[in-house]
Amino acid sequence: MTDARPPDLARLSLNQATTQRWTLREAVDGCFRAGIPWIGPWRDKVAEAGGAVASARLIRDAGLRVSSLCRGGFFPAATPSARRERIDDNRRALDEAAEIGTEVLVLVCGPAPDRDIDAARRMVEDGIAAVIPYAAERGVRLAIEPLHPMFAGDRSVVVTLAQANGMVERLDSPHVGVAVDVYHVWWDPEVYVQIARAAGRILGFHISDWLAPPPDVLLGRGMMGDGVIQLQRLRAAVEAAGYTGPIEVEIFNQQIWDTPGDQVLARIRERYPDC
Amino acid sequence: MTDARPPDLARLSLNQATTQRWTLREAVDGCFRAGIPWIGPWRDKVAEAGGAVASARLIRDAGLRVSSLCRGGFFPAATPSARRERIDDNRRALDEAAEIGTEVLVLVCGPAPDRDIDAARRMVEDGIAAVIPYAAERGVRLAIEPLHPMFAGDRSVVVTLAQANGMVERLDSPHVGVAVDVYHVWWDPEVYVQIARAAGRILGFHISDWLAPPPDVLLGRGMMGDGVIQLQRLRAAVEAAGYTGPIEVEIFNQQIWDTPGDQVLARIRERYPDC
Repeated sequence: MTDARPPDLARLSLNQATTQRWTLREAVDGCFRAGIPWIGPWRDKVAEAGGAVASARLIRDAGLRVSSLCRGGFFPAATPSARRERIDDNRRALDEAAEIGTEVLVLVCGPAPDRDIDAARRMVEDGIAAVIPYAAERGVRLAIEPLHPMFAGDRSVVVTLAQANGMVERLDSPHVGVAVDVYHVWWDPEVYVQIARAAGRILGFHISDWLAPPPDVLLGRGMMGDGVIQLQRLRAAVEAAGYTGPIEVEIFNQQIWDTPGDQVLARIRERYPDC
Repeated sequence: MTDARPPDLARLSLNQATTQRWTLREAVDGCFRAGIPWIGPWRDKVAEAGGAVASARLIRDAGLRVSSLCRGGFFPAATPSARRERIDDNRRALDEAAEIGTEVLVLVCGPAPDRDIDAARRMVEDGIAAVIPYAAERGVRLAIEPLHPMFAGDRSVVVTLAQANGMVERLDSPHVGVAVDVYHVWWDPEVYVQIARAAGRILGFHISDWLAPPPDVLLGRGMMGDGVIQLQRLRAAVEAAGYTGPIEVEIFNQQIWDTPGDQVLARIRERYPDC
């Protein structure tokens, strides 16, 4: 770092997907060493660490806070009973979010079970509607995360912030909002209009970068500063829309996964002040 | 084929990118053998075949017609002189389109030279505006092709049909319209609204399929029927919007490129009636 002063890390969060090879304990310890005050765990890692209650203790003991839990969602399915199972799983995810001590459950909404993408979009909205009462009961908010359209076939039929905003407005609950991930929305000609439209309902902000050309469909995200996203402009827009919560660094990248975690966190600290 | 009758191939066109290993002559011969009446050549292949005039003769002698020429575009550049060079290249592309005997030049608009995607979008619109008079002179129309947002960083800052329609409306010329490629637009929650909005200004329709998950960023397109795109619904929408021209099959896929061209064309003939 050219600047000797420590950057203001107060809002910085490590989304656990960035250090895929670390267990939750390793990630918590890494954040502690790096002075990163927030962490965004994933449910599979939480389960491996002994569940949400044990994970909450682990995180709290290190003095960290939980920015969000990844992830609920995956609502569309071919049959009513399969859709009910997905809703049950989202209720469990809400339990885990409450137990681990975060107010935000990130929703990756899921792909269509067949070619009918519009029907799948209705299943998503119906599924979210079905879990809102339980979210309210558990004091957790559901953050609809529009994914990049490159994931429309296998991960999420919700692919634009306009679409997520429309759902949030129709569902009209204080327990439903959006998560804005720069990687998923940066390309959108409407992104600034839609961030403004989401004012007051932004529940999370995720950063990484878009490499050009992307080296991989799933594992091609870049470290902030290595790509073409206007990170500062997007952050300013999200802040102008009232979001002042944690900023999660979420990077799916094989090369970064293969780098020792402490080095990755050092690089995040170095790049974060320019984001 | 289960149906012994030959399918109605009158509108079928082979976009040359589908048979990447074939020269233009080989592609023309292949179309002739397969009974495919249209071809959409690429400029690099046209140059290899001796230029547009020689290529026109080759195509005409086989009784084929040219559905479009790929591609113009790539307007954004870091300096005014570099942008003028791009415009000059588009004028040459218009010459080649006229010489090869098509009324349609497909535009892949190009990426930003830096992180300023909005500025690059203005450069695209300015670039198209600059070549409209020459397009009119040569009797060729410019088809703005929105590319999938996964190409926003390296191929096109024009990524939605809404955006292309906006440009077409502002440019307001009979020589500017859009090309609709199902692979690029299928994910868009607004696609049917935007196809209807493009009525009368659709200059091309390209088909392939979206594999889930995509095996590659650039070379991951699928043969029609192998993926999740609602091809018949999109075709019906494009036809309801007045488009009755050729339907180009354009598949960038390494495995298909590695398959003998005649087999690829046979598969296209087999799948096309269900598209």
